[in-house]
Amino acid sequence: MKRADIVVIGGSAAGLTAAITARRHYPEKQTLLIRKEEQVLIPCGIPYIFGTVGSPEKNLIPDAVLSKNEIQLLIDEVVDLDREKGEVTTAGGESVAYDRLILATGSLPAMPPVPGFDLGGVFPVFKDVAHLSHMQEELKGISDLVVIGGGFIGVEFADECRKSLQANVSIVEMLPHCLMLAYDEEFCTEAERLLRERGITPITDTKVSRVAGNDRVEAVELDGGNAIPAQAVIVGIGATANLELAMKSSLPIGPTGGIVVDRTMRTADARVFACGDCAEKISFFGGRPSPLKLASIATAEARIAGANLYGTRRENIGTIGVWSTAIGDTAFATAGLTESLAIRNGYSYVVGAAEAVNRHPGGMPGAYPMKVKLVFEKRTGVILGGQVMGDKAAGELINAISACVQRRMTADDIAVFQTGTHPALTASPIAYQFVNAAEAAIAAAR
Amino acid sequence: MKRADIVVIGGSAAGLTAAITARRHYPEKQTLLIRKEEQVLIPCGIPYIFGTVGSPEKNLIPDAVLSKNEIQLLIDEVVDLDREKGEVTTAGGESVAYDRLILATGSLPAMPPVPGFDLGGVFPVFKDVAHLSHMQEELKGISDLVVIGGGFIGVEFADECRKSLQANVSIVEMLPHCLMLAYDEEFCTEAERLLRERGITPITDTKVSRVAGNDRVEAVELDGGNAIPAQAVIVGIGATANLELAMKSSLPIGPTGGIVVDRTMRTADARVFACGDCAEKISFFGGRPSPLKLASIATAEARIAGANLYGTRRENIGTIGVWSTAIGDTAFATAGLTESLAIRNGYSYVVGAAEAVNRHPGGMPGAYPMKVKLVFEKRTGVILGGQVMGDKAAGELINAISACVQRRMTADDIAVFQTGTHPALTASPIAYQFVNAAEAAIAAAR
Repeated sequence: MKRADIVVIGGSAAGLTAAITARRHYPEKQTLLIRKEEQVLIPCGIPYIFGTVGSPEKNLIPDAVLSKNEIQLLIDEVVDLDREKGEVTTAGGESVAYDRLILATGSLPAMPPVPGFDLGGVFPVFKDVAHLSHMQEELKGISDLVVIGGGFIGVEFADECRKSLQANVSIVEMLPHCLMLAYDEEFCTEAERLLRERGITPITDTKVSRVAGNDRVEAVELDGGNAIPAQAVIVGIGATANLELAMKSSLPIGPTGGIVVDRTMRTADARVFACGDCAEKISFFGGRPSPLKLASIATAEARIAGANLYGTRRENIGTIGVWSTAIGDTAFATAGLTESLAIRNGYSYVVGAAEAVNRHPGGMPGAYPMKVKLVFEKRTGVILGGQVMGDKAAGELINAISACVQRRMTADDIAVFQTGTHPALTASPIAYQFVNAAEAAIAAAR
Repeated sequence: MKRADIVVIGGSAAGLTAAITARRHYPEKQTLLIRKEEQVLIPCGIPYIFGTVGSPEKNLIPDAVLSKNEIQLLIDEVVDLDREKGEVTTAGGESVAYDRLILATGSLPAMPPVPGFDLGGVFPVFKDVAHLSHMQEELKGISDLVVIGGGFIGVEFADECRKSLQANVSIVEMLPHCLMLAYDEEFCTEAERLLRERGITPITDTKVSRVAGNDRVEAVELDGGNAIPAQAVIVGIGATANLELAMKSSLPIGPTGGIVVDRTMRTADARVFACGDCAEKISFFGGRPSPLKLASIATAEARIAGANLYGTRRENIGTIGVWSTAIGDTAFATAGLTESLAIRNGYSYVVGAAEAVNRHPGGMPGAYPMKVKLVFEKRTGVILGGQVMGDKAAGELINAISACVQRRMTADDIAVFQTGTHPALTASPIAYQFVNAAEAAIAAAR
């Protein structure tokens, strides 16, 4: 029987980062990572395989990172976990004893509860090279593609497929707007305008009633009776935690369907940790269960889990939710609560927004309008979240906002925040959007 | 005699922002801004006039921002300040009574104490449209330009002039490297490599002994005996506070030559505030006098001064120093202390660095290597500063680092920092440089 001090199950963002962190913190411990995939896909890069990047092979996490960090690798599927013995068993018949175990088993694509999803040409998004290669083959030459789900994954798939296929591309979203769980309405409206400009048809406030066809999909039928022709359907409506092993070994499962962990990422079993999409999350705001699943949340959790294996070194402050995407050259990014989420969470709040070009003077190359909207708790002035739309540097500005959210900075703290600005890189210090949005909120609260 | 509740002297970054902030916080008060310039230049944009932007007229702060904020404007030079009467007098013979006064008189270019700086063709950088237009005319057709001073201003001027002139461009810097007050050696070396690649000759570790010529400059003579031919010289060796009014009215001056202010930006006179380049600064690190002068520091101070005019609402936490520049497509940015500054300030410290491309997978368009180096106080793990080199988004990433510095986050806080990442915008969450640099520092401290 094999044995390793630390066994990590899962080789994607959470598993890999947990293993690296374990090695960094406990270099004297042997660390073994077990995963079922021959090759591991960069999860967030998957939609880009279908356009910009070109193939699954160009979107892989290189295994060199494992050897470089002296992490042993076993490619096999773990099918059983005996927590009493401290031992996992693989499909290949291997038994591996562990001293500490990290579950990073990820998630599986959710499927809507309507008929027709078993037809040929209907594709959930599995993080699997063969599946995605097959999907790419099947999409070639079609004239009508329907994407079900207008969240990040749906929007990114639609945009990328539109780039590479000579096809009509529609997105069907049941909420009033695409991306509505991530952004406030004014941002969603702009995103939809950009999608239309790029030849994509968002069909919002609309549910799918059935996927129709004989062997293969022929149309997507909508509530209300309309139907859209489709030779292929991509389903991007979210993901559910992969709990197979956790269930088999009777680990407690939380209200959003993740493995229950404490703030150190420890499960009910003191020797077993969980992180990433398979782990239950608690919101930074109010401490309620959080259904968010993002690779960046997974890696942050993995850096906590990996450090705590032999002693508590780090605690999870709760899930903030920081995300970004791009439609063409326009980036969209959010950290923490949007205005709509602040309402839903019962906060009294005040908002402030500011817009300016990201260069100064405006004639500098790369000048592009950039808007920042911030939400503050009304009584204390503490920031609850921020949204950015515009220049690609929004992808980093949102991390400045995230830092302020994590440290519960107030609107006044942010108004006098010491920023760096430069003509070729940002707005002017007078017009700097993040700071002025805070000033606007202070003025609005008066 | 004229009268205004609030009088602001100076129309650049500090004065303008102070006036806007005063209006935001005290909308019932009349606010008058007095400045001597007909047109106000965007200060950080000045080097770019000489290449990318093309003329001073394309680098102006529009006066619309004054009218929009209901700020009155008087274009005239204030020549006297009587604090007992609460009154300023202008060169045009106007007297203006104030209830609260903000001094934002800025700085003047420093000149080195060596002979020849009065020759024709030698240009200090005054923030004045006519001066800069004249300078632009005089540079036309020259074959050799020498820039004295290899700080930001010198480097940016050299790069922009090289773009627009058919001339040999040299930078003479007395320190061992260009940009050495802003970055650690490895960043400076890369900056110098880029400058050379762009046809600029950095001459470092070298002092100017004399600017030679008859009426006009003909050469720059260096310590050691060498001389560089020059038909024009640009002097960018720093700036000294413009104290004329403060001295006339006997306001105390601090050790770095700025008007002494407390943490509310109030001078020794309870009715008089100062901010920006003319105000004395205290470092965030150790509370020592700080000689830094930046537009972004000026605006942060102005947002404090303007809010405190009729009651203390905001305090200055001390100057961190956040700056950025770009040489071609490569951005350089710093927040807080570099490793060399940490040594000079007597800190026991530990550093961590991480490098990765700013996209994932690396085949995404815009992929560009990006390096982050962080400096932490050894015993507490509190971050002292960070440097970023690479993608233009460094201009915003440095603001995330600045937020962490301001909130004295530790390496462990940053290692589990909740970031947003996206294939088209940033490194992957596994490789994210800021977080991995913190992890590297933790490993190094062990």
